[in-house]
Amino acid sequence: MTTEAKSSSRERLLEAAATLTYRDGVGIGVDALCKAAGVSKRSMYQLFESKGELLAASLEERAAAYVTTLLPARDDDRPPRERILHVFRQMESQAGEPDFQGCRYLVVQIELKDQGHPASRVAHRVKENLAAFFRAEAERGGASDPGLLARQLMLIFDGASARAGIRADTATGLIAPTVTVLLDAAGMH
Amino acid sequence: MTTEAKSSSRERLLEAAATLTYRDGVGIGVDALCKAAGVSKRSMYQLFESKGELLAASLEERAAAYVTTLLPARDDDRPPRERILHVFRQMESQAGEPDFQGCRYLVVQIELKDQGHPASRVAHRVKENLAAFFRAEAERGGASDPGLLARQLMLIFDGASARAGIRADTATGLIAPTVTVLLDAAGMH
Repeated sequence: MTTEAKSSSRERLLEAAATLTYRDGVGIGVDALCKAAGVSKRSMYQLFESKGELLAASLEERAAAYVTTLLPARDDDRPPRERILHVFRQMESQAGEPDFQGCRYLVVQIELKDQGHPASRVAHRVKENLAAFFRAEAERGGASDPGLLARQLMLIFDGASARAGIRADTATGLIAPTVTVLLDAAGMH
Repeated sequence: MTTEAKSSSRERLLEAAATLTYRDGVGIGVDALCKAAGVSKRSMYQLFESKGELLAASLEERAAAYVTTLLPARDDDRPPRERILHVFRQMESQAGEPDFQGCRYLVVQIELKDQGHPASRVAHRVKENLAAFFRAEAERGGASDPGLLARQLMLIFDGASARAGIRADTATGLIAPTVTVLLDAAGMH
């Protein structure tokens, strides 16, 4: 394979792994992934050690876009309270998409049931970064207990995402009032 | 098969489906389920139309115990606020078990990704009953918006359960203060 062909096979595999795992679950077979990517199994195993490594790489590759979509821009100088609400507005908008099945970094950990799996580790790290953002904003905003507020916000984030993902509820009219109550209770400005 | 043998095969299959699906996910094979139950595939298909029907029946069978464990007793005459907190104390205790992987009625819906699946329908109904309990207590306790409070409590329930299940957080020191803030904000007595 040329370097260019390799790179393109790699990208197609990452895309197939991200899309099909999200749609069908982590049980999706290597054959289905290779077929969707138009890549032979032999080529796949030249590029990735295992399906698990491919899945981990696909989650890793999307992490930057995930963060960019959710978090306020670096030069966004609104108060911490507004910056936190921004994340939840973005999430609410994602949760309204017809193919939304919950935050992929939560879902993959629930499905894998193995915190040591390479994909679980990536997913855990991505969500820890979100928790760290909440904690930093909580500190800047003068929350009475920034650690607790960050944990509460992650709870809301994952709960709302899971429930919207299974169509048990929508995020609309639910996330904003809930987050506001928690921010108020923490004395956030 | 005698009626007794049938009943016992059925029970062993229900137990295996509940235990193995929770431990390993909905992708668990029929062979593994039958092996764990000590039942032939032929017998399994005499008792259940499909693996999906077996899974649905196993969730249905545990629903009564699930409700009994979580909800206060019928003759529990504490105020609505205390009755709601009771549910979360029970959940917190479950979430502390070493084999806890999240509420099984949430997890199965996330994994199946199909709200029309017989097992998703059972799971959805069981959680709707919990939401109805919250709503009734919210009304009795004079919540300003009982519908919103019930949705918020389900959000906390599923979020805390999911995060404890993937070991992203523990329920301890998190659920009680969060639920209390929401009950206070709703003016619950």
